[in-house]
Amino acid sequence: MKAAYYTGNKSFTIESVQPAEPVQGEVQISVSYCGICGSDLHVFHGAMDDRVGSHRVIGHEMSGKITAIGENVQGLELGDPVVVRPLSACGDCPACQRGHTHICQNLKVLGVDIDGAFQQIWTVPAHTIHKIPTDLRLDHAALIEPVAVACHDVRRARLIAGEDTLIIGGGPIGLLIAMVAKHIGANVILSEVNAYRLELAQSLGFATLNPRKVNVADEINEQTANKGADVIFEVSGTQTGVDTMTEAAATCCRIVMVAIHGTKPTVDLFKFVLREIELLGARVYKPDDFNHAIALVASGAIDCNSIITDVRPLDEITLAFEALSGNAPSMKSLIKCA
Amino acid sequence: MKAAYYTGNKSFTIESVQPAEPVQGEVQISVSYCGICGSDLHVFHGAMDDRVGSHRVIGHEMSGKITAIGENVQGLELGDPVVVRPLSACGDCPACQRGHTHICQNLKVLGVDIDGAFQQIWTVPAHTIHKIPTDLRLDHAALIEPVAVACHDVRRARLIAGEDTLIIGGGPIGLLIAMVAKHIGANVILSEVNAYRLELAQSLGFATLNPRKVNVADEINEQTANKGADVIFEVSGTQTGVDTMTEAAATCCRIVMVAIHGTKPTVDLFKFVLREIELLGARVYKPDDFNHAIALVASGAIDCNSIITDVRPLDEITLAFEALSGNAPSMKSLIKCA
Repeated sequence: MKAAYYTGNKSFTIESVQPAEPVQGEVQISVSYCGICGSDLHVFHGAMDDRVGSHRVIGHEMSGKITAIGENVQGLELGDPVVVRPLSACGDCPACQRGHTHICQNLKVLGVDIDGAFQQIWTVPAHTIHKIPTDLRLDHAALIEPVAVACHDVRRARLIAGEDTLIIGGGPIGLLIAMVAKHIGANVILSEVNAYRLELAQSLGFATLNPRKVNVADEINEQTANKGADVIFEVSGTQTGVDTMTEAAATCCRIVMVAIHGTKPTVDLFKFVLREIELLGARVYKPDDFNHAIALVASGAIDCNSIITDVRPLDEITLAFEALSGNAPSMKSLIKCA
Repeated sequence: MKAAYYTGNKSFTIESVQPAEPVQGEVQISVSYCGICGSDLHVFHGAMDDRVGSHRVIGHEMSGKITAIGENVQGLELGDPVVVRPLSACGDCPACQRGHTHICQNLKVLGVDIDGAFQQIWTVPAHTIHKIPTDLRLDHAALIEPVAVACHDVRRARLIAGEDTLIIGGGPIGLLIAMVAKHIGANVILSEVNAYRLELAQSLGFATLNPRKVNVADEINEQTANKGADVIFEVSGTQTGVDTMTEAAATCCRIVMVAIHGTKPTVDLFKFVLREIELLGARVYKPDDFNHAIALVASGAIDCNSIITDVRPLDEITLAFEALSGNAPSMKSLIKCA
């Protein structure tokens, strides 16, 4: 079978390798589709070489079907369509011992710390598997992992119907948060600078603001009769986004920190006191979030066709990554693996 | 009766004025004691002149007895010992309409926006009054307001017994938070730089760390077997405190922002994501926090004698404020008003 190895320096090599047979507690999957995540792009651009090395199969937003099952695995059958929750917790650290395995202090991410899904056959621990409905399209199912991120973010926010919700940053995760929040019944406003993403969000019926053209906080406060946003998702990773999140916050606003801020921005902590704002860090997902995501994708609540911009074969993975670099008019690119 | 007016430029003038008769819905109080708050010191040093003007009776940490009652006031009698919750909400703003009157968007604070308690007779709205036990010492009762701040902060943290709790900053509010947290059964560690305050906290049985001598986060992580603090109160208002709060945080740590940060510090937002940390702004108190504080002070759970450093008559208010300026070996100074 073929596997795409990230080999450093913005390149992949396609290699023919022997598939790993599943040992006890493992499952072997024929990978149907695997999406390209922002973190995969970070790897491609060399920002995570210390962590992934120079011979790593990356990728984790996948769907596929079971091709072999190791010993001591219950409840799965050959041919089952599945997705993988790509986390491996140590079980021993203080976080794990308190039940927070998704934020294990020694967390290993499949497709980052160990080999991932940009290959035709992938062998993983059975505890990472979620079965999906047999009638679910496998290209759509490749979105379940990022939808699970959005479900976790929305759950962290304790979002309820009717709440004025500002999403700062309209990339794939921001747009999926918008869809999950809209499904709950929130009044969603999405802030984004990229013309392609703004147009896509508008075509999906979302109210949008462009912070290069308007003062987002002023607009939110005006639209809410000087109340502010009840819930804010900071998905931009920018100083401007961090400034906006406190300026647009209602009293008792819940701000969910989704973005990875590589540098430490300045934050208006006085506003946190003045309005009793909450800031809630959110990382990946719990099993329940995956189940929620599967249900949402299966029900049609997530408009998968609008999110998936293009699909390329595994052989063209380098081209696909190159096409996404820079300010590409794209949302989610999938690689067809098997 | 005598009233101390802040008249700008680090000075008070004592004036003889006619006490205000209570009109409908008001109560007149003979003020027994009034403590000097950090915000009173800010006023004294001119930092709040825009808000208080140059002829204002400040002070709000008080105790006293009712001397007159206006019409349409129920449940209060002449001679009742009382404290005042010094907040006046507008009732109309988005915050008030959602029940968050303590963070009203037009909140007026008695002793800041309208006249306060550094006077012998004070007339206030009846809804601000909390009755206190008749056998409670009135000097101790003057601590109820700052204890209510501490109760609110601890409630925001959802603190439970056994949790490793770091308090960054050991001034009056930090020390009161330590006492309230200890009463709940938390494992309290207090970080402070001032030698007098460190010694006082130690004499009260608290574990302390001096960030000028040790790396507080390293110590916390070492003492908790690499877990970190479950709950952190940032009461220092410093960049060092803000750095420590993320470095010492356990997974799912609740950090309560108590301090007023006049400038915007840099914050490690990545750590919020990595460990799913919560930041919870906390401002003043709700009526329940006052009731909690009254119960704690009345029960002896708060060591009031250790907190009260000195008591001076109203005539010496300027001296009292001057003595607290700079790095004074002091915790709480009271003014004896009536």
